[in-house]
Amino acid sequence: MYQALTDQKLIKEIPDGGILTPKGFKCGGIHAGLRYNKLDLGMIVSEAAANCAAVYTTSHFQAAPLVVTQESISSDGVLQAVVVNSACANACTGEQGYKDALRMRALAAEKLGIPETHVAVASTGVIGEFMQMEKIEAGIAKLAVGNDSEHAKDFQTAILTTDLVMKHACYSADIDGLTVSVGGAAKGSGMIHPNMATMLGFLTTDANISSADLTYALQEVTNTTFNQITVDGDTSTNDMVLVMANGAAGNEPLNRDHPEWLIFVELLKESCASLAKQIARDGEGATKLIEISVSGAMSDEEARMIGKQIAGSNLVKTAVYGADANWGRIIGAIGQSQATVNPKTVDISLGDLIMLKEGTPIAFDEEIAREYLMNDKVEIFVDLHLGEGKGMAWGCDLSYDYVKINASYRT
Amino acid sequence: MYQALTDQKLIKEIPDGGILTPKGFKCGGIHAGLRYNKLDLGMIVSEAAANCAAVYTTSHFQAAPLVVTQESISSDGVLQAVVVNSACANACTGEQGYKDALRMRALAAEKLGIPETHVAVASTGVIGEFMQMEKIEAGIAKLAVGNDSEHAKDFQTAILTTDLVMKHACYSADIDGLTVSVGGAAKGSGMIHPNMATMLGFLTTDANISSADLTYALQEVTNTTFNQITVDGDTSTNDMVLVMANGAAGNEPLNRDHPEWLIFVELLKESCASLAKQIARDGEGATKLIEISVSGAMSDEEARMIGKQIAGSNLVKTAVYGADANWGRIIGAIGQSQATVNPKTVDISLGDLIMLKEGTPIAFDEEIAREYLMNDKVEIFVDLHLGEGKGMAWGCDLSYDYVKINASYRT
Repeated sequence: MYQALTDQKLIKEIPDGGILTPKGFKCGGIHAGLRYNKLDLGMIVSEAAANCAAVYTTSHFQAAPLVVTQESISSDGVLQAVVVNSACANACTGEQGYKDALRMRALAAEKLGIPETHVAVASTGVIGEFMQMEKIEAGIAKLAVGNDSEHAKDFQTAILTTDLVMKHACYSADIDGLTVSVGGAAKGSGMIHPNMATMLGFLTTDANISSADLTYALQEVTNTTFNQITVDGDTSTNDMVLVMANGAAGNEPLNRDHPEWLIFVELLKESCASLAKQIARDGEGATKLIEISVSGAMSDEEARMIGKQIAGSNLVKTAVYGADANWGRIIGAIGQSQATVNPKTVDISLGDLIMLKEGTPIAFDEEIAREYLMNDKVEIFVDLHLGEGKGMAWGCDLSYDYVKINASYRT
Repeated sequence: MYQALTDQKLIKEIPDGGILTPKGFKCGGIHAGLRYNKLDLGMIVSEAAANCAAVYTTSHFQAAPLVVTQESISSDGVLQAVVVNSACANACTGEQGYKDALRMRALAAEKLGIPETHVAVASTGVIGEFMQMEKIEAGIAKLAVGNDSEHAKDFQTAILTTDLVMKHACYSADIDGLTVSVGGAAKGSGMIHPNMATMLGFLTTDANISSADLTYALQEVTNTTFNQITVDGDTSTNDMVLVMANGAAGNEPLNRDHPEWLIFVELLKESCASLAKQIARDGEGATKLIEISVSGAMSDEEARMIGKQIAGSNLVKTAVYGADANWGRIIGAIGQSQATVNPKTVDISLGDLIMLKEGTPIAFDEEIAREYLMNDKVEIFVDLHLGEGKGMAWGCDLSYDYVKINASYRT
């Protein structure tokens, strides 16, 4: 259905677009001194209070900024700004951490002259260290927002940790004859194995949509995008995806009865999918993006489970890194899935190369397979031949550099 | 309870013991040519038909030898021999693979002059390749068994794949005033994340015990030993743990009414725990054994779940490799567990160093922590302060060599 919409060109990608493409948003980022020499504090501001939706990590240890953001959203159901820092996650920091997140929110609200509960707070970085509040305070005072590409880049950079590249995406479409856009920025490189939200993702849209309908759309979209990527199987304490919808496009309110509802969902989905794939490709130490497509499962959910199991397998990841077409490892990953599998009906292909047909190995040219695995995107197809369920997942290979980065993260 | 038995010295470890320490067993191993220059075919033979128990991988893709072994055991409930090869897993090999496993069983039975259904078959190695049956046939014909330490070493070596060291264990105790021993040999280095059995483990005992009671004991023991180790989160198609009990010790039949039942269970448990830890320590690329002890959980099962989640975390594993006391990664792993956790009551220690007390970070000396993490065994303690549940898990660090080994396994 959604694919059909893209095929019909009802929605289009804005190649250099991001959080400032939708009308009525500004942003910025500065070096507050939390990190040695990288921008580390950013802010997105909407011209008007915006309806909003968010999903959060399922970790038992939700960091303080997530608690504060939930309090903000549950207060009036609108947000006008989000303030984000990298370097320090403000997680497992107890009462002091909660107070620090509240203070960060208050400082941003004061600067902008808006209610505290209209500000969301997000943090990413090392767990268990306290925020350097004097730097945050000075940083927020100094932070300037604007709506040009330099400000967008500053924000996109300020939220990164071990990421190598900025992640941004934007799609737009005509709704009620008006241009509606969804843009986003994200960070995430390690501790990536979403189980709800995954990392930090911030989306803006000028669509006119209620918080309830936006929440419905975001949850649906998150399950097939951010929740389907994995870098290392670990779920962070700080994962959050947040959308602000300020209504500046002037369309009729979007909801499931609106004739163009699916176009909006697709805008959101394509933006989230693009950011999700950018995160997987930039996984710590990654040299390749791995895309898994599963079909013939008993349900879409089971197809997604199997896809993620394959994407998360260290043995599959190292084989792809080494360009070794060892499909037995894909079998290992599918084999332990909770999903229904009949070993006698499984097909596996690597790109165009069939490796297993109805559970029986098919001879293939190792050299061609090796060459295929040298590409910077590797596609794995699995057909279970059991039902109509299908789904996708994304991951990356596991390299020496993953070990290098993670054996010395704090030092 | 069990710990108390060991403390009272009711059971004792036999340092150089193994599968030949219990009375009435022989074994051997040879180079059948499946691998370039390592022993690759082995056999254990009991003097008399032995009662038996086994647990198998939960993978959807159970390899052919496991199917054949289950057929053997379900036939008469006794085994007199097990024949094992390394190099080729005989998994995902369809009808041909099943016939090859049957033929391997028949060749062993013929050589020993015993019924085919008294022979178990096990294989380990690359998935999706067919057995070289002419080499298996010649190998079985040539294979000689004996009951001295050279034969034990040959068997222990023949079952290894990427393992660096042989794994064997033995414990004995007095039962009915007679010496009863349980000995074992195991292999397992990669694709180790048990969900039932884990790897190949072969145990022998001269205890007099029915197959039903042995099965009961093995299942109980497997859940707290082999199922609590993880090397890379992947479950193999060929995992199997098999015990043969030939009754040569002459004790009264062991069952839950026997006054020394718990002593026998403890013998089995200590042998399995020793083998499990040897497997974790010899994980692919491992430089350290990581032992996790969880207490204060709502149940023993939840404690084991959390322990295994920590042992399986790539981020914890790389931090231990890099001797970085980044306990936030332990939080990351606990956080995503399905078990009940209250973030405000969690304590975490690394050896004697307290890192987190009731959810609040405790300052510690980084240099002392770093030194502790340089040991070849690292202990992590977690207390949830919620209930009486406790459990342990074992894993290893994640090093450059893990990537090296697995980026080129087949080449």
